[in-house]
Amino acid sequence: MPRYRITIEYDGTPFVGWQRQAEGLSIQGLLEEAIRKFTGETVGVRGAGRTDAGVHALGQVAHVDLTKDWAASRVRDAMNFHLRPHPIGVVASDAVDATFDARFSAVKRHYRYRLLTRRAPPILDKNRVWWTMRDLDAEAMADAAKVFVGRHDFTTFRAAQCQAPSPVKTLDVFDITRSGEEIVCEISARSFLHHQVRSMVGSLKLVGEGKWSREDIVSALAARNREACGTVSPASGLYLVGVDYPEDAITTSSYPPSRSPETPDE
Amino acid sequence: MPRYRITIEYDGTPFVGWQRQAEGLSIQGLLEEAIRKFTGETVGVRGAGRTDAGVHALGQVAHVDLTKDWAASRVRDAMNFHLRPHPIGVVASDAVDATFDARFSAVKRHYRYRLLTRRAPPILDKNRVWWTMRDLDAEAMADAAKVFVGRHDFTTFRAAQCQAPSPVKTLDVFDITRSGEEIVCEISARSFLHHQVRSMVGSLKLVGEGKWSREDIVSALAARNREACGTVSPASGLYLVGVDYPEDAITTSSYPPSRSPETPDE
Repeated sequence: MPRYRITIEYDGTPFVGWQRQAEGLSIQGLLEEAIRKFTGETVGVRGAGRTDAGVHALGQVAHVDLTKDWAASRVRDAMNFHLRPHPIGVVASDAVDATFDARFSAVKRHYRYRLLTRRAPPILDKNRVWWTMRDLDAEAMADAAKVFVGRHDFTTFRAAQCQAPSPVKTLDVFDITRSGEEIVCEISARSFLHHQVRSMVGSLKLVGEGKWSREDIVSALAARNREACGTVSPASGLYLVGVDYPEDAITTSSYPPSRSPETPDE
Repeated sequence: MPRYRITIEYDGTPFVGWQRQAEGLSIQGLLEEAIRKFTGETVGVRGAGRTDAGVHALGQVAHVDLTKDWAASRVRDAMNFHLRPHPIGVVASDAVDATFDARFSAVKRHYRYRLLTRRAPPILDKNRVWWTMRDLDAEAMADAAKVFVGRHDFTTFRAAQCQAPSPVKTLDVFDITRSGEEIVCEISARSFLHHQVRSMVGSLKLVGEGKWSREDIVSALAARNREACGTVSPASGLYLVGVDYPEDAITTSSYPPSRSPETPDE
Protein backbone atom coordinates (compact mmCIF):
# COMPACT_ATOMS: atom_id res chain seq x y z
CA MET A 1 0.00 0.00 0.00
CA PRO A 2 1.85 3.12 -1.15
CA ARG A 3 2.34 5.82 1.49
CA TYR A 4 2.51 9.50 0.61
CA ARG A 5 3.92 12.38 2.57
CA ILE A 6 2.07 15.59 1.83
CA THR A 7 3.21 19.08 2.77
CA ILE A 8 0.35 21.48 3.39
CA GLU A 9 -0.19 25.24 3.59
CA TYR A 10 -3.33 26.59 5.19
CA ASP A 11 -4.99 29.70 6.50
CA GLY A 12 -6.30 28.53 9.86
CA THR A 13 -8.85 31.33 10.24
CA PRO A 14 -12.04 29.53 9.12
CA PHE A 15 -11.27 26.15 10.68
CA VAL A 16 -11.86 24.48 14.05
CA GLY A 17 -8.22 23.39 13.83
CA TRP A 18 -6.24 20.53 12.33
CA GLN A 19 -8.19 17.75 13.99
CA ARG A 20 -11.55 16.40 12.88
CA GLN A 21 -14.30 17.38 15.33
CA ALA A 22 -18.00 16.74 15.69
CA GLU A 23 -18.83 20.26 14.54
CA GLY A 24 -17.12 22.58 12.08
CA LEU A 25 -14.58 22.28 9.28
CA SER A 26 -11.16 20.84 10.12
CA ILE A 27 -8.08 20.70 7.94
CA GLN A 28 -7.72 16.97 8.55
CA GLY A 29 -11.36 16.36 7.63
CA LEU A 30 -11.10 18.38 4.40
CA LEU A 31 -7.91 16.59 3.36
CA GLU A 32 -9.61 13.24 3.93
CA GLU A 33 -12.63 14.41 1.94
CA ALA A 34 -10.38 15.55 -0.93
CA ILE A 35 -8.76 12.10 -1.00
CA ARG A 36 -12.15 10.41 -0.97
CA LYS A 37 -13.31 12.53 -3.93
CA PHE A 38 -10.11 11.77 -5.79
CA THR A 39 -9.61 8.05 -5.06
CA GLY A 40 -12.97 6.93 -3.70
CA GLU A 41 -11.16 5.71 -0.59
CA THR A 42 -12.01 6.62 2.97
CA VAL A 43 -8.64 7.09 4.65
CA GLY A 44 -7.15 8.67 7.73
CA VAL A 45 -4.62 11.49 7.34
CA ARG A 46 -2.11 11.84 10.16
CA GLY A 47 -0.43 15.22 10.70
CA ALA A 48 2.84 16.17 12.36
CA GLY A 49 1.23 18.88 14.49
CA ARG A 50 -2.36 19.22 15.63
CA THR A 51 -2.68 22.96 15.20
CA ASP A 52 -5.51 24.76 17.02
CA ALA A 53 -8.34 26.78 15.49
CA GLY A 54 -6.96 29.90 13.80
CA VAL A 55 -3.34 28.66 13.65
CA HIS A 56 -1.81 28.71 10.17
CA ALA A 57 0.64 26.42 8.43
CA LEU A 58 3.23 27.01 5.74
CA GLY A 59 4.60 23.49 5.93
CA GLN A 60 2.42 21.11 7.93
CA VAL A 61 3.30 17.54 7.05
CA ALA A 62 0.95 14.56 6.96
CA HIS A 63 0.96 11.04 5.61
CA VAL A 64 -1.68 8.88 4.03
CA ASP A 65 -1.85 5.35 2.63
CA LEU A 66 -3.59 4.81 -0.70
CA THR A 67 -4.46 1.55 -2.41
CA LYS A 68 -3.33 2.53 -5.88
CA ASP A 69 0.19 3.57 -6.79
CA TRP A 70 -0.43 7.16 -7.98
CA ALA A 71 2.29 9.48 -9.19
CA ALA A 72 3.07 11.73 -6.22
CA SER A 73 2.50 14.82 -8.36
CA ARG A 74 -0.95 13.48 -9.26
CA VAL A 75 -1.84 13.16 -5.57
CA ARG A 76 -0.82 16.79 -5.02
CA ASP A 77 -2.71 18.15 -8.04
CA ALA A 78 -5.88 16.11 -7.51
CA MET A 79 -6.03 17.05 -3.84
CA ASN A 80 -5.61 20.73 -4.70
CA PHE A 81 -8.45 20.42 -7.19
CA HIS A 82 -10.79 18.90 -4.61
CA LEU A 83 -9.72 21.18 -1.75
CA ARG A 84 -11.10 24.25 -3.51
CA PRO A 85 -12.41 26.69 -2.41
CA HIS A 86 -11.03 26.07 1.07
CA PRO A 87 -7.79 27.87 1.99
CA ILE A 88 -5.77 24.67 2.12
CA GLY A 89 -3.13 23.74 -0.45
CA VAL A 90 -0.89 20.73 -0.94
CA VAL A 91 2.45 22.34 -1.78
CA ALA A 92 4.33 19.05 -2.14
CA SER A 93 3.74 15.34 -2.16
CA ASP A 94 6.28 12.55 -2.09
CA ALA A 95 6.07 8.78 -2.07
CA VAL A 96 7.65 7.52 1.15
CA ASP A 97 8.22 4.09 2.58
CA ALA A 98 5.90 2.53 5.10
CA THR A 99 8.16 3.34 8.04
CA PHE A 100 7.56 7.07 7.58
CA ASP A 101 5.10 8.52 10.08
CA ALA A 102 4.37 12.24 9.85
CA ARG A 103 3.89 12.50 13.60
CA PHE A 104 6.29 10.00 15.09
CA SER A 105 9.16 10.28 12.60
CA ALA A 106 9.39 14.05 13.04
CA VAL A 107 12.65 15.14 14.64
CA LYS A 108 11.97 18.87 14.73
CA ARG A 109 9.02 21.19 14.41
CA HIS A 110 9.44 24.86 13.51
CA TYR A 111 6.94 27.50 14.53
CA ARG A 112 6.80 31.22 13.82
CA TYR A 113 4.86 33.81 15.79
CA ARG A 114 4.26 37.29 14.34
CA LEU A 115 3.33 40.40 16.32
CA LEU A 116 2.41 43.68 14.64
CA THR A 117 3.14 46.77 16.73
CA ARG A 118 1.54 49.93 15.38
CA ARG A 119 -1.47 52.15 15.91
CA ALA A 120 -3.28 51.07 12.74
CA PRO A 121 -4.87 47.62 12.78
CA PRO A 122 -3.48 44.89 10.53
CA ILE A 123 -4.93 45.19 7.03
CA LEU A 124 -3.14 42.93 4.54
CA ASP A 125 -2.15 40.81 7.56
CA LYS A 126 -5.60 40.66 9.16
CA ASN A 127 -5.95 37.35 11.07
CA ARG A 128 -2.24 36.71 10.45
CA VAL A 129 -0.59 38.56 13.36
CA TRP A 130 -1.12 39.53 17.00
CA TRP A 131 -1.81 43.24 16.88
CA THR A 132 -0.56 45.41 19.71
CA MET A 133 -0.99 49.18 19.49
CA ARG A 134 1.89 49.90 21.87
CA ASP A 135 5.44 49.27 20.81
CA LEU A 136 7.32 46.43 22.47
CA ASP A 137 10.95 46.13 23.52
CA ALA A 138 11.98 43.38 21.12
CA GLU A 139 15.51 43.19 22.52
CA ALA A 140 14.25 42.56 26.05
CA MET A 141 11.89 39.92 24.67
CA ALA A 142 14.71 38.27 22.71
CA ASP A 143 16.88 38.18 25.80
CA ALA A 144 14.15 36.72 28.01
CA ALA A 145 13.24 34.14 25.35
CA LYS A 146 16.65 32.53 25.88
CA VAL A 147 15.41 31.41 29.31
CA PHE A 148 13.21 28.88 27.52
CA VAL A 149 15.99 27.34 25.44
CA GLY A 150 17.16 23.95 26.69
CA ARG A 151 15.52 21.12 28.59
CA HIS A 152 12.87 22.29 31.07
CA ASP A 153 9.68 21.33 32.82
CA PHE A 154 7.19 23.54 30.93
CA THR A 155 4.18 22.91 33.20
CA THR A 156 3.62 26.68 33.51
CA PHE A 157 3.37 27.04 29.73
CA ARG A 158 1.10 24.08 29.08
CA ALA A 159 -2.67 24.13 28.58
CA ALA A 160 -4.76 22.47 31.29
CA GLN A 161 -6.13 20.04 28.69
CA CYS A 162 -2.65 19.04 27.44
CA GLN A 163 -2.40 15.27 27.15
CA ALA A 164 1.35 14.87 26.78
CA PRO A 165 2.69 12.28 29.23
CA SER A 166 5.50 14.55 30.43
CA PRO A 167 5.80 18.35 30.78
CA VAL A 168 9.54 18.14 30.11
CA LYS A 169 10.58 19.34 26.66
CA THR A 170 13.78 20.49 25.02
CA LEU A 171 13.54 23.78 23.19
CA ASP A 172 16.25 24.23 20.57
CA VAL A 173 15.59 27.71 19.19
CA PHE A 174 13.72 30.78 20.41
CA ASP A 175 14.86 33.75 18.35
CA ILE A 176 13.06 37.09 18.35
CA THR A 177 13.83 39.81 15.82
CA ARG A 178 12.27 43.08 14.80
CA SER A 179 11.44 43.73 11.16
CA GLY A 180 9.97 47.21 10.87
CA GLU A 181 6.64 47.24 12.67
CA GLU A 182 6.75 43.51 13.13
CA ILE A 183 8.28 41.34 15.83
CA VAL A 184 8.93 37.80 14.65
CA CYS A 185 9.56 34.81 16.91
CA GLU A 186 11.15 31.63 15.50
CA ILE A 187 10.77 28.62 17.77
CA SER A 188 12.01 25.08 17.15
CA ALA A 189 11.86 21.87 19.15
CA ARG A 190 11.37 18.17 18.61
CA SER A 191 7.88 18.52 20.03
CA PHE A 192 5.77 20.98 21.99
CA LEU A 193 3.11 20.87 24.70
CA HIS A 194 -0.41 22.09 23.96
CA HIS A 195 -0.45 25.92 23.86
CA GLN A 196 3.24 26.00 24.72
CA VAL A 197 4.30 28.45 22.02
CA ARG A 198 1.33 30.74 22.60
CA SER A 199 1.86 30.66 26.38
CA MET A 200 5.56 31.51 26.05
CA VAL A 201 4.91 34.30 23.53
CA GLY A 202 2.11 35.75 25.66
CA SER A 203 4.41 35.88 28.67
CA LEU A 204 7.25 37.40 26.64
CA LYS A 205 4.91 40.16 25.47
CA LEU A 206 4.67 41.24 29.12
CA VAL A 207 8.46 41.57 29.03
CA GLY A 208 8.18 43.63 25.85
CA GLU A 209 5.72 45.93 27.60
CA GLY A 210 8.05 46.34 30.58
CA LYS A 211 5.55 44.69 32.93
CA TRP A 212 7.71 41.61 33.41
CA SER A 213 11.48 41.26 33.60
CA ARG A 214 13.66 38.40 32.42
CA GLU A 215 13.66 37.27 36.06
CA ASP A 216 9.87 37.01 35.98
CA ILE A 217 10.19 34.54 33.09
CA VAL A 218 12.77 32.57 35.09
CA SER A 219 10.40 32.50 38.08
CA ALA A 220 7.37 31.56 35.99
CA LEU A 221 9.26 28.64 34.44
CA ALA A 222 10.57 27.52 37.84
CA ALA A 223 7.08 27.67 39.35
CA ARG A 224 5.90 24.68 37.26
CA ASN A 225 2.41 25.96 37.80
CA ARG A 226 -0.07 26.99 35.10
CA GLU A 227 -1.18 29.91 37.30
CA ALA A 228 2.25 31.49 36.85
CA CYS A 229 1.81 31.85 33.07
CA GLY A 230 1.52 35.45 31.90
CA THR A 231 -1.10 35.22 29.21
CA VAL A 232 -1.80 33.07 26.17
CA SER A 233 -1.29 34.82 22.84
CA PRO A 234 -3.99 34.53 20.14
CA ALA A 235 -3.88 31.79 17.52
CA SER A 236 -3.87 34.25 14.59
CA GLY A 237 -0.13 35.05 14.89
CA LEU A 238 1.04 31.43 14.93
CA TYR A 239 2.40 29.45 11.95
CA LEU A 240 3.62 25.87 11.71
CA VAL A 241 6.49 26.65 9.35
CA GLY A 242 7.93 23.21 8.74
CA VAL A 243 8.78 19.78 10.10
CA ASP A 244 12.10 17.98 9.83
CA TYR A 245 12.56 14.24 9.35
CA PRO A 246 15.76 12.27 9.62
CA GLU A 247 15.67 10.42 6.34
CA ASP A 248 16.02 13.28 3.92
CA ALA A 249 16.00 17.02 3.46
CA ILE A 250 12.86 17.60 1.42
CA THR A 251 10.86 19.21 4.20
CA THR A 252 12.71 22.12 5.70
CA SER A 253 12.06 25.00 8.01
CA SER A 254 12.64 27.65 5.36
CA TYR A 255 9.67 29.48 3.92
CA PRO A 256 8.50 29.12 1.23
CA PRO A 257 8.53 25.35 1.45
CA SER A 258 10.93 23.71 -0.94
CA ARG A 259 9.56 22.88 -4.35
CA SER A 260 8.70 19.33 -5.13
CA PRO A 261 10.12 18.11 -8.45
CA GLU A 262 7.90 18.96 -11.39
CA THR A 263 6.94 15.57 -12.71
CA PRO A 264 4.37 15.07 -15.48
CA ASP A 265 0.82 14.96 -14.16
CA GLU A 266 -0.62 11.90 -15.77
CA MET B 1 -7.27 75.36 7.15
CA PRO B 2 -4.90 72.63 8.32
CA ARG B 3 -3.85 70.08 5.74
CA TYR B 4 -3.00 66.48 6.60
CA ARG B 5 -1.03 63.94 4.69
CA ILE B 6 -2.26 60.42 5.37
CA THR B 7 -0.47 57.22 4.48
CA ILE B 8 -2.80 54.32 3.80
CA GLU B 9 -2.60 50.54 3.59
CA TYR B 10 -5.40 48.62 1.93
CA ASP B 11 -6.41 45.26 0.58
CA GLY B 12 -7.84 46.17 -2.81
CA THR B 13 -9.81 42.92 -3.23
CA PRO B 14 -13.31 44.09 -2.19
CA PHE B 15 -13.15 47.56 -3.76
CA VAL B 16 -13.96 49.10 -7.14
CA GLY B 17 -10.61 50.87 -6.84
CA TRP B 18 -9.25 54.03 -5.29
CA GLN B 19 -11.66 56.40 -7.00
CA ARG B 20 -15.23 57.08 -5.95
CA GLN B 21 -17.69 55.63 -8.47
CA ALA B 22 -21.44 55.56 -8.91
CA GLU B 23 -21.62 51.93 -7.77
CA GLY B 24 -19.56 49.97 -5.27
CA LEU B 25 -17.17 50.73 -2.44
CA SER B 26 -14.08 52.79 -3.20
CA ILE B 27 -11.11 53.51 -0.95
CA GLN B 28 -11.46 57.26 -1.55
CA GLY B 29 -15.16 57.14 -0.70
CA LEU B 30 -14.60 55.20 2.52
CA LEU B 31 -11.83 57.56 3.63
CA GLU B 32 -14.12 60.53 3.02
CA GLU B 33 -16.90 58.80 4.94
CA ALA B 34 -14.55 58.11 7.86
CA ILE B 35 -13.63 61.80 7.97
CA ARG B 36 -17.27 62.81 7.87
CA LYS B 37 -18.08 60.51 10.79
CA PHE B 38 -15.11 61.86 12.72
CA THR B 39 -15.31 65.61 12.00
CA GLY B 40 -18.80 66.07 10.55
CA GLU B 41 -17.17 67.62 7.48
CA THR B 42 -17.74 66.58 3.89
CA VAL B 43 -14.31 66.74 2.31
CA GLY B 44 -12.47 65.50 -0.72
CA VAL B 45 -9.48 63.21 -0.28
CA ARG B 46 -6.88 63.33 -3.04
CA GLY B 47 -4.58 60.35 -3.53
CA ALA B 48 -1.15 60.04 -5.12
CA GLY B 49 -2.16 57.08 -7.28
CA ARG B 50 -5.60 56.06 -8.51
CA THR B 51 -5.23 52.32 -8.07
CA ASP B 52 -7.62 50.01 -9.95
CA ALA B 53 -10.04 47.50 -8.50
CA GLY B 54 -8.14 44.70 -6.75
CA VAL B 55 -4.83 46.60 -6.53
CA HIS B 56 -3.38 46.84 -3.02
CA ALA B 57 -1.47 49.55 -1.22
CA LEU B 58 1.13 49.44 1.53
CA GLY B 59 1.83 53.17 1.36
CA GLN B 60 -0.73 55.06 -0.69
CA VAL B 61 -0.58 58.77 0.19
CA ALA B 62 -3.45 61.24 0.22
CA HIS B 63 -4.13 64.71 1.58
CA VAL B 64 -7.15 66.30 3.10
CA ASP B 65 -8.03 69.73 4.49
CA LEU B 66 -9.91 69.91 7.78
CA THR B 67 -11.43 72.97 9.47
CA LYS B 68 -10.20 72.22 12.97
CA ASP B 69 -6.57 71.85 13.95
CA TRP B 70 -6.54 68.22 15.12
CA ALA B 71 -3.44 66.46 16.40
CA ALA B 72 -2.20 64.41 13.45
CA SER B 73 -2.23 61.26 15.57
CA ARG B 74 -5.88 61.91 16.40
CA VAL B 75 -6.73 62.06 12.69
CA ARG B 76 -5.03 58.70 12.18
CA ASP B 77 -6.69 57.00 15.16
CA ALA B 78 -10.18 58.41 14.54
CA MET B 79 -10.06 57.46 10.87
CA ASN B 80 -8.97 53.94 11.75
CA PHE B 81 -11.88 53.69 14.19
CA HIS B 82 -14.39 54.74 11.55
CA LEU B 83 -12.84 52.71 8.71
CA ARG B 84 -13.67 49.42 10.44
CA PRO B 85 -14.45 46.80 9.31
CA HIS B 86 -13.16 47.67 5.85
CA PRO B 87 -9.62 46.50 5.02
CA ILE B 88 -8.23 50.04 4.94
CA GLY B 89 -5.88 51.44 7.56
CA VAL B 90 -4.26 54.83 8.10
CA VAL B 91 -0.71 53.87 9.02
CA ALA B 92 0.52 57.46 9.41
CA SER B 93 -0.77 61.00 9.41
CA ASP B 94 1.21 64.22 9.41
CA ALA B 95 0.30 67.88 9.37
CA VAL B 96 1.70 69.42 6.19
CA ASP B 97 1.63 72.89 4.76
CA ALA B 98 -0.89 73.98 2.17
CA THR B 99 1.55 73.62 -0.72
CA PHE B 100 1.66 69.85 -0.26
CA ASP B 101 -0.42 67.97 -2.80
CA ALA B 102 -0.45 64.18 -2.59
CA ARG B 103 -0.80 63.85 -6.33
CA PHE B 104 1.14 66.76 -7.78
CA SER B 105 3.96 67.01 -5.23
CA ALA B 106 4.88 63.36 -5.66
CA VAL B 107 8.33 62.90 -7.19
CA LYS B 108 8.36 59.11 -7.27
CA ARG B 109 5.91 56.25 -7.03
CA HIS B 110 6.99 52.74 -6.09
CA TYR B 111 5.06 49.68 -7.17
CA ARG B 112 5.62 46.01 -6.47
CA TYR B 113 4.25 43.09 -8.46
CA ARG B 114 4.28 39.57 -7.01
CA LEU B 115 4.02 36.33 -9.01
CA LEU B 116 3.69 32.93 -7.35
CA THR B 117 5.03 30.05 -9.42
CA ARG B 118 4.04 26.66 -8.09
CA ARG B 119 1.52 23.87 -8.70
CA ALA B 120 -0.52 24.61 -5.56
CA PRO B 121 -2.73 27.69 -5.64
CA PRO B 122 -1.94 30.63 -3.37
CA ILE B 123 -3.39 30.05 0.09
CA LEU B 124 -2.13 32.59 2.63
CA ASP B 125 -1.49 34.88 -0.38
CA LYS B 126 -4.86 34.38 -2.04
CA ASN B 127 -5.79 37.56 -3.98
CA ARG B 128 -2.27 38.89 -3.27
CA VAL B 129 -0.26 37.40 -6.14
CA TRP B 130 -0.51 36.36 -9.78
CA TRP B 131 -0.49 32.58 -9.67
CA THR B 132 1.20 30.69 -12.47
CA MET B 133 1.48 26.90 -12.27
CA ARG B 134 4.49 26.73 -14.58
CA ASP B 135 7.84 28.03 -13.45
CA LEU B 136 9.19 31.20 -15.07
CA ASP B 137 12.73 32.17 -16.06
CA ALA B 138 13.16 35.05 -13.63
CA GLU B 139 16.62 35.91 -14.97
CA ALA B 140 15.32 36.31 -18.52
CA MET B 141 12.48 38.45 -17.20
CA ALA B 142 14.89 40.60 -15.18
CA ASP B 143 17.07 41.10 -18.23
CA ALA B 144 14.16 42.03 -20.49
CA ALA B 145 12.73 44.40 -17.86
CA LYS B 146 15.78 46.62 -18.31
CA VAL B 147 14.43 47.49 -21.79
CA PHE B 148 11.76 49.54 -20.04
CA VAL B 149 14.16 51.59 -17.91
CA GLY B 150 14.69 55.13 -19.13
CA ARG B 151 12.58 57.62 -21.08
CA HIS B 152 10.25 55.95 -23.60
CA ASP B 153 6.96 56.30 -25.41
CA PHE B 154 4.90 53.66 -23.56
CA THR B 155 1.88 53.68 -25.90
CA THR B 156 2.06 49.89 -26.21
CA PHE B 157 1.78 49.49 -22.46
CA ARG B 158 -1.03 51.95 -21.85
CA ALA B 159 -4.73 51.18 -21.42
CA ALA B 160 -7.05 52.43 -24.18
CA GLN B 161 -8.89 54.54 -21.61
CA CYS B 162 -5.68 56.18 -20.28
CA GLN B 163 -6.16 59.94 -19.98
CA ALA B 164 -2.56 61.06 -19.56
CA PRO B 165 -1.68 63.86 -22.00
CA SER B 166 1.54 62.16 -23.12
CA PRO B 167 2.55 58.50 -23.45
CA VAL B 168 6.16 59.40 -22.71
CA LYS B 169 7.33 58.42 -19.24
CA THR B 170 10.68 57.89 -17.54
CA LEU B 171 11.03 54.60 -15.72
CA ASP B 172 13.72 54.67 -13.03
CA VAL B 173 13.70 51.13 -11.65
CA PHE B 174 12.48 47.77 -12.90
CA ASP B 175 14.10 45.05 -10.82
CA ILE B 176 12.97 41.44 -10.84
CA THR B 177 14.18 38.91 -8.31
CA ARG B 178 13.23 35.40 -7.30
CA SER B 179 12.47 34.61 -3.69
CA GLY B 180 11.70 30.91 -3.41
CA GLU B 181 8.46 30.24 -5.29
CA GLU B 182 7.87 33.94 -5.74
CA ILE B 183 9.03 36.35 -8.42
CA VAL B 184 8.97 39.94 -7.23
CA CYS B 185 9.08 43.01 -9.49
CA GLU B 186 10.01 46.41 -8.05
CA ILE B 187 9.11 49.32 -10.32
CA SER B 188 9.65 53.03 -9.71
CA ALA B 189 8.92 56.16 -11.70
CA ARG B 190 7.73 59.70 -11.16
CA SER B 191 4.39 58.69 -12.68
CA PHE B 192 2.82 55.89 -14.67
CA LEU B 193 0.26 55.49 -17.43
CA HIS B 194 -2.98 53.62 -16.79
CA HIS B 195 -2.29 49.85 -16.66
CA GLN B 196 1.38 50.48 -17.46
CA VAL B 197 2.81 48.27 -14.73
CA ARG B 198 0.36 45.46 -15.36
CA SER B 199 0.94 45.65 -19.13
CA MET B 200 4.71 45.52 -18.72
CA VAL B 201 4.56 42.64 -16.22
CA GLY B 202 2.12 40.70 -18.39
CA SER B 203 4.47 41.01 -21.36
CA LEU B 204 7.49 40.05 -19.26
CA LYS B 205 5.71 36.89 -18.13
CA LEU B 206 5.75 35.80 -21.79
CA VAL B 207 9.53 36.19 -21.61
CA GLY B 208 9.57 34.11 -18.43
CA GLU B 209 7.62 31.39 -20.25
CA GLY B 210 10.06 31.44 -23.17
CA LYS B 211 7.33 32.58 -25.58
CA TRP B 212 8.88 36.01 -26.01
CA SER B 213 12.53 37.07 -26.14
CA ARG B 214 14.10 40.30 -24.91
CA GLU B 215 13.96 41.42 -28.55
CA ASP B 216 10.19 40.95 -28.56
CA ILE B 217 9.98 43.42 -25.66
CA VAL B 218 12.17 45.85 -27.61
CA SER B 219 9.89 45.49 -30.65
CA ALA B 220 6.70 45.83 -28.63
CA LEU B 221 7.97 49.06 -27.03
CA ALA B 222 9.11 50.41 -30.41
CA ALA B 223 5.74 49.59 -31.99
CA ARG B 224 3.96 52.31 -29.95
CA ASN B 225 0.80 50.36 -30.54
CA ARG B 226 -1.50 48.89 -27.89
CA GLU B 227 -2.00 45.82 -30.11
CA ALA B 228 1.67 44.93 -29.59
CA CYS B 229 1.23 44.49 -25.82
CA GLY B 230 1.62 40.89 -24.65
CA THR B 231 -1.04 40.61 -22.01
CA VAL B 232 -2.21 42.59 -18.99
CA SER B 233 -1.44 40.96 -15.65
CA PRO B 234 -4.21 40.73 -13.02
CA ALA B 235 -4.67 43.43 -10.39
CA SER B 236 -4.25 41.03 -7.47
CA GLY B 237 -0.44 40.94 -7.67
CA LEU B 238 0.04 44.72 -7.69
CA TYR B 239 0.93 46.90 -4.68
CA LEU B 240 1.43 50.65 -4.43
CA VAL B 241 4.35 50.42 -2.01
CA GLY B 242 5.10 54.07 -1.38
CA VAL B 243 5.29 57.60 -2.71
CA ASP B 244 8.21 60.00 -2.38
CA TYR B 245 7.94 63.75 -1.90
CA PRO B 246 10.71 66.30 -2.09
CA GLU B 247 10.20 68.07 1.22
CA ASP B 248 11.02 65.30 3.62
CA ALA B 249 11.74 61.64 4.06
CA ILE B 250 8.70 60.49 6.04
CA THR B 251 7.12 58.54 3.23
CA THR B 252 9.49 56.02 1.78
CA SER B 253 9.41 53.06 -0.50
CA SER B 254 10.44 50.59 2.15
CA TYR B 255 7.85 48.23 3.53
CA PRO B 256 6.55 48.32 6.17
CA PRO B 257 5.82 52.06 5.96
CA SER B 258 7.80 54.14 8.41
CA ARG B 259 6.25 54.60 11.80
CA SER B 260 4.67 57.91 12.62
CA PRO B 261 5.76 59.33 15.98
CA GLU B 262 3.73 58.03 18.89
CA THR B 263 2.05 61.13 20.22
CA PRO B 264 -0.68 61.02 22.88
CA ASP B 265 -4.13 60.52 21.44
CA GLU B 266 -6.15 63.30 22.93
